[in-house]
Amino acid sequence: MQLSQVYAPVQQDLIKVESQLKSASKVDFPHLAELLSYTLSGGKGIRPALTLLSGKLYHYNLDLLLPMATAVELMHTATLVHDDAIDDSPIRRGRPTINTMWGEDRAVLLGDYLFAKAGEFAAITGNLRVIRLFSKTLQIISSGELVQTFDAFNLKQTPDHYLERISSKTASLFSLATESGGILSQAPEESTRILREYGHNLGIAFQIVDDILDFTGTEEEMGKPIGSDLAQGTFTLPAMLLLEHYPEDNPVAELFNNQDMPEPEKQKRIRQAIELVRSSPIAKQCHELASEYCAKACQRLELLSDNPSRQALKELANLVISRKK
Amino acid sequence: MQLSQVYAPVQQDLIKVESQLKSASKVDFPHLAELLSYTLSGGKGIRPALTLLSGKLYHYNLDLLLPMATAVELMHTATLVHDDAIDDSPIRRGRPTINTMWGEDRAVLLGDYLFAKAGEFAAITGNLRVIRLFSKTLQIISSGELVQTFDAFNLKQTPDHYLERISSKTASLFSLATESGGILSQAPEESTRILREYGHNLGIAFQIVDDILDFTGTEEEMGKPIGSDLAQGTFTLPAMLLLEHYPEDNPVAELFNNQDMPEPEKQKRIRQAIELVRSSPIAKQCHELASEYCAKACQRLELLSDNPSRQALKELANLVISRKK
Repeated sequence: MQLSQVYAPVQQDLIKVESQLKSASKVDFPHLAELLSYTLSGGKGIRPALTLLSGKLYHYNLDLLLPMATAVELMHTATLVHDDAIDDSPIRRGRPTINTMWGEDRAVLLGDYLFAKAGEFAAITGNLRVIRLFSKTLQIISSGELVQTFDAFNLKQTPDHYLERISSKTASLFSLATESGGILSQAPEESTRILREYGHNLGIAFQIVDDILDFTGTEEEMGKPIGSDLAQGTFTLPAMLLLEHYPEDNPVAELFNNQDMPEPEKQKRIRQAIELVRSSPIAKQCHELASEYCAKACQRLELLSDNPSRQALKELANLVISRKK
Repeated sequence: MQLSQVYAPVQQDLIKVESQLKSASKVDFPHLAELLSYTLSGGKGIRPALTLLSGKLYHYNLDLLLPMATAVELMHTATLVHDDAIDDSPIRRGRPTINTMWGEDRAVLLGDYLFAKAGEFAAITGNLRVIRLFSKTLQIISSGELVQTFDAFNLKQTPDHYLERISSKTASLFSLATESGGILSQAPEESTRILREYGHNLGIAFQIVDDILDFTGTEEEMGKPIGSDLAQGTFTLPAMLLLEHYPEDNPVAELFNNQDMPEPEKQKRIRQAIELVRSSPIAKQCHELASEYCAKACQRLELLSDNPSRQALKELANLVISRKK
């Protein structure tokens, strides 16, 4: 099954989200228009799909859900643009990043613009609870990323630190997507809570899989370089397990403890770490944890009314686990 | 007359804004708390004062005006943090910038957090018009700054381009401050419009003076390096007039046309330009334009009800013109 099949109950409206994003690129300044149109295409659309599917479970009001789904995708794009600028990432979605094409400074300003545009779309909902949630989520994401910079190359982090980190950086936006879908479609409070937890657990699973793919994927599939977490000093779950499995002569430990090592030496350690993960049960172990979070995500969905969107949310969770890119 | 005297009608409540900013620094992560507390102090407080003074003209409701004044100051701080990161500015408010102390990456993330926090405070007002205005303003500021990066070192810009640029980058936030004050205190629509225009014109005057001081001020007074606009390739009004007055052998033209010139050569051109502005009537000419905008700002204030806050807004305009830092 593919994403587009899972999206079926909201496929038509996801196309409307795309149109909203396209029209957001139409601005007076040609330079800005170019940057916006470059950056606002090629996403998987998972987050806006989550908002629409969540909304479809109750009183589906496209006038509210469409701007919110667009806001969620814009916020996601803004965080990617800033992350890539900060990490000096060369490639994203198989294309040079904004910072590569137009420089880091413009990437910062473009990200700011996208955050503001996202805020404008969130405000269109006219729902103060959703607007507050939106601001809170951006605080959680940026503070999480900020804290992460202080933890870079720190081998003392535990899986609990890791889960806390990905909860801020990824799961918070997934749960904003689902929770806002519930709120804007007047779901009962308990159902909104279930949707939020679903989003949270799905986000955790999604990020764990992302972090596995940084070892086991290919640049072609992922549309971005492999091993980039290690290069950035981001201590993800597979690297933690690698250190646990091979406490002696560990390439991750060597890399993190010797940040001044020449670039070819660094690349060698990264390749070694990738090979070790690929030839060990570590990826499987990580997948198991991701599956647990997916199961947790789906478990309580049973309590929601049964309809094609609920089924789609379940299938989406399975797809998150099995994805190769 | 000093700023603190002008602020008299709202002095007590400006202290409450300070407290709100201080409490915004109290977060769970010690690193983030440190950065917030470092950056959220030492501002002139003009923007929150504008919101409070504008509100004081009508139905002063501190429950709404206090969060908005705080939001305005937070947004201002966020833009400064990002600007400094982008410009690699070493000093602000007489102290090393966030990017100098903690690196550009953290400055980007801290700015994001501050934008989100500002959005949260704006949402506390519960006023959707103000919330939308807030998002729109951040779009105007960031798109203006982005366009500016494409115009760097471009000598073909005219004073009209300049006015458009400072309208986006500075006046938009001043008018957000005053307009939101009007909206939140239920000012009649026409009065809100007058307040917005006052803010806009005051902002233009403020930025022209800022750009003069980048030539005529001292680093001690300004708390930041002098000549930084030229170093960044930002073509401000004094530099434009300098080129007009001295079309031959002009240091600004030499600097902008030879960006690869060695650093000591650049510094020499910047010093020459500063000397030329200081010894010519250019600063006076710029001041005259700033005064015109201030007069325009104050002119229609007469139509608003006469009270100490209206008087304070007038005095603030005069102070903006005569300020030396």
